[in-house]
Amino acid sequence: MAGADDAGQITIWDQMISADGDISMPSVDYRKDWSAIGTWAITGDEGTVTGQHVVYTQPETVEAFRATGKFPDGAVLVKELLNAESAHMTTGQAAWATDVSGWFVMIKDSTNRYASSGLWGNGWGWAYFDKSDRVNTTTKSFRGECLGCHVPARKTDWIYTKAYPALTGK
Amino acid sequence: MAGADDAGQITIWDQMISADGDISMPSVDYRKDWSAIGTWAITGDEGTVTGQHVVYTQPETVEAFRATGKFPDGAVLVKELLNAESAHMTTGQAAWATDVSGWFVMIKDSTNRYASSGLWGNGWGWAYFDKSDRVNTTTKSFRGECLGCHVPARKTDWIYTKAYPALTGK
Repeated sequence: MAGADDAGQITIWDQMISADGDISMPSVDYRKDWSAIGTWAITGDEGTVTGQHVVYTQPETVEAFRATGKFPDGAVLVKELLNAESAHMTTGQAAWATDVSGWFVMIKDSTNRYASSGLWGNGWGWAYFDKSDRVNTTTKSFRGECLGCHVPARKTDWIYTKAYPALTGK
Repeated sequence: MAGADDAGQITIWDQMISADGDISMPSVDYRKDWSAIGTWAITGDEGTVTGQHVVYTQPETVEAFRATGKFPDGAVLVKELLNAESAHMTTGQAAWATDVSGWFVMIKDSTNRYASSGLWGNGWGWAYFDKSDRVNTTTKSFRGECLGCHVPARKTDWIYTKAYPALTGK
């Protein structure tokens, strides 16, 4: 984790965050090397699955959360947003993920070290990335653009942990 | 992989397969330590998402598939079957996975070394596990119980690889 004794995590933190708190995507192969903690199926008005969201974090964050029930500083959550297709398959109607449309990224920092940045607050850094640019976030203000959707999860550190079986062990 | 130079993979193979080809679940923390290669949303008759399936494999299998386009011998696929809940959330209708109901497991073996077992054939070992028992599969015959649903994917080694972005890189 950031500032901890794990050199790998410090490298990720440094790569992801500029001196003034700007956030970039982590330059890791999260699909292969990180833990998928949960998945979302997004349903359109007619009941068709139009998207799938897969949330990844470092294996070390899974270990820490299972041990303490909290996200450690330096925890990175990558929510990969994918479009979906569906079909009537041999077992019934099913949908699967296709191409990426973007990513939501959050980084845990309980010390609020980037208080002057609009991307940081409530214990996290918050940023969205369009699929075309993993370096520059389009987010200007986490309060205006991110926080609203997380208010229902404020009692679980703003994260919908009930949807993440890899953390909660069900 | 099995029979390869990676001691960890040989251990998994030995733990999963008895001398006569019976298959058990891999005793690994696949949620934390393996790669999630794709997810399925299962839709009921009224368009409600009733289940989510998450497919895991060894990181080494991801590397091998990306390099060769094929599953290497010793590749293990674990399809975790989860029930799902859904709600109208801040961003619209969404579903998330809850508890596990069972697992489908496949093990690649191009050499057909367990030809006398009903669990092996077409280049794979095939087994289903109810959530109550990770050691003893309920499957007796892969041809009667498993293969039918995989026939549409026969041209991609019986696996629906189009649904696995971590392998195909989209």
